[in-house]
Amino acid sequence: MAPERGFPAEEFAARVDRAQARMAELGVDAMIVSTEPEVRYFTGFHTPFWQSPTRPWFVVVPATGKPVAVIPSIGAASMASTWIDDIRTWSSPQPDDDGVTLLADTVSELAGPDGRIGMPIGPETHVRMPLSDLDRLRERLGEFHDVTDVIRSLRMVKSEREIAKHRHICGIVSDAFDRLPEILSIGMSEREAFQAFRAEIIAQGADDVPYLVGATGPGGIDDIIRQPSDRPIADGDLLIFDTGSTYDGYFSDFDRNFAFGSATQDAIDAYRAVWEATEAGLAACRPGATTTDVFAAMNEVLKANGSLGNDVGRMGHGLGMQVTEWPSHTATDDTMIEENMVLTLEPGLLWAPGKAMVHEENVVVRSGGAELLSRRAAPELPII
Amino acid sequence: MAPERGFPAEEFAARVDRAQARMAELGVDAMIVSTEPEVRYFTGFHTPFWQSPTRPWFVVVPATGKPVAVIPSIGAASMASTWIDDIRTWSSPQPDDDGVTLLADTVSELAGPDGRIGMPIGPETHVRMPLSDLDRLRERLGEFHDVTDVIRSLRMVKSEREIAKHRHICGIVSDAFDRLPEILSIGMSEREAFQAFRAEIIAQGADDVPYLVGATGPGGIDDIIRQPSDRPIADGDLLIFDTGSTYDGYFSDFDRNFAFGSATQDAIDAYRAVWEATEAGLAACRPGATTTDVFAAMNEVLKANGSLGNDVGRMGHGLGMQVTEWPSHTATDDTMIEENMVLTLEPGLLWAPGKAMVHEENVVVRSGGAELLSRRAAPELPII
Repeated sequence: MAPERGFPAEEFAARVDRAQARMAELGVDAMIVSTEPEVRYFTGFHTPFWQSPTRPWFVVVPATGKPVAVIPSIGAASMASTWIDDIRTWSSPQPDDDGVTLLADTVSELAGPDGRIGMPIGPETHVRMPLSDLDRLRERLGEFHDVTDVIRSLRMVKSEREIAKHRHICGIVSDAFDRLPEILSIGMSEREAFQAFRAEIIAQGADDVPYLVGATGPGGIDDIIRQPSDRPIADGDLLIFDTGSTYDGYFSDFDRNFAFGSATQDAIDAYRAVWEATEAGLAACRPGATTTDVFAAMNEVLKANGSLGNDVGRMGHGLGMQVTEWPSHTATDDTMIEENMVLTLEPGLLWAPGKAMVHEENVVVRSGGAELLSRRAAPELPII
Repeated sequence: MAPERGFPAEEFAARVDRAQARMAELGVDAMIVSTEPEVRYFTGFHTPFWQSPTRPWFVVVPATGKPVAVIPSIGAASMASTWIDDIRTWSSPQPDDDGVTLLADTVSELAGPDGRIGMPIGPETHVRMPLSDLDRLRERLGEFHDVTDVIRSLRMVKSEREIAKHRHICGIVSDAFDRLPEILSIGMSEREAFQAFRAEIIAQGADDVPYLVGATGPGGIDDIIRQPSDRPIADGDLLIFDTGSTYDGYFSDFDRNFAFGSATQDAIDAYRAVWEATEAGLAACRPGATTTDVFAAMNEVLKANGSLGNDVGRMGHGLGMQVTEWPSHTATDDTMIEENMVLTLEPGLLWAPGKAMVHEENVVVRSGGAELLSRRAAPELPII
């Protein structure tokens, strides 16, 4: 059964409590966030309207009490349906002062004249407003204290309600992948294959398929972030599909590899090697280990199988309201893995020049170790 | 027939030529862009991978010659398939220097030690990199000269190839809207109605439906940017669907309103008033007029019909690689309308407290006036 939509107010209150505890440690009197996942995390405000770059949106988390929304009036009705009470609006677009004064006044009121103002300004963040307006905001409020780690540490560890949404979408996408041998056939174009898979995921119950990449290639694939082409699938092709699909705003993110008609022994061996690397990652991924331990466990298997390296820069990452989130499994990331993190394991093997094999699974970290959210890929390369 | 995918190199060369002519007027020696539509506009690099916030991506447009890509190595193969020759990569994520030095070195090389560096920092832009890294970049390169108007003036006016993509997706979505009376029925939940409509748009040939909002309500609707709920559609409901769907990375963006079973005379009158306002907008939207003229033409009809105002802040906007782009039809925008702009006309009427009616059509501006891309909405409220 599909998990309940949205979250009760107590979930948001708990998030804000944890944020405020961290803010207190840092002496931060108010925190400004401006991007979709940050605003949604603290308010529940959920709309695709963010795709329009016209209007900035802000939420201020004060040292105590509920967050305050500082948003364009077009969002007032939607925001009023969340747990937020204090909603301050202006009529946007208004290029000469698109919320800057209203935001600065609100922050000054909440943090006091000498308050320390936090904003996430570190890795994997950006500030979603024009830089010229951001400079004006800094003139009013002074420099921002980096609170990336406050947001990061909260969002990396999921609640059971969030995990249920991840599990649900991972199940849906697993079912859709299972149907691929029935849906795809030699002679279809990549584009037709993409659209058939996208439709299948929606039919299985996903809300949307915001992320879908993949490629086919004779005996191997050189580019794993590609959009589809009109190339027809041929006998002997390998195919990779990698999708980030959503249920209630939470992502799955895993891939599957298939061969059509036949496969070379090298491709079969590469598939098996990356599957074994994922096994090593699953075993290493437990509370108290680090992302670097997980990387090393997978990398060792890949090196033993003749890896020529890879261009991905990491072997998996966090997963949540965005298709990728902190942390990253790299040789230097060293993030301590905690219970209830939702992570991907994504080892990649360049098994010949221009031929990459990437596997990906989604897990939630439990006290005993990694629990799969995606249905584990077949241990041997499936041939359609 | 569907327009050809992508663009020939000459299209990108023409864009860069126009940008460089504007840069020369401003004395700008190199321009940095960092967001998906900006990078795609100058390179053709097209991937949903941008949804991952982990890695920054940059393109530098020099005063002469082709743009230079400064990107994570994961994107090298995809970027190499575009018309770009000079691709500089680093292995990302690398939080201690995630492209900052490589970008600064590249810009210094292209612009010279005392070069004037441009970046779009004005309305409807943001810089897609961590603010702490952006500050380091400014330390290396000095302050940026605002080139929002360079990007804006180029992107607002579409080529025939771009217009063909807009026309194609608008036709697809028009066909899908025409099928709504067969697809929807009283008793379906909003969510089921959304998914049925999304599936229909995909089945008609859209690549994706990134933007879909809407609502139902007894006799009227108070929130036009909402996600669907489990509320079942009831006799006497009004329904609005507003979708931004894509073909080859170009958007449609228009809505349709329906009643189920029956409608009140007030709702029928409100529909007619907004339809008439759109007619006035269509007549006013021609080269040499301004966005403010278009706004005024529509607003006059709405006021004559007892409008209580609206929360949208504008009555339409530009359309392109993003579901909304510059300019905006507002009382103060005053952008000169030019041939080959693709625009939405989006009058909104608050006809009773909590009851909004919004219509939207997509047009391309031709020498003789507005040419519809969407199939014109019925003049009277359709009842399903």
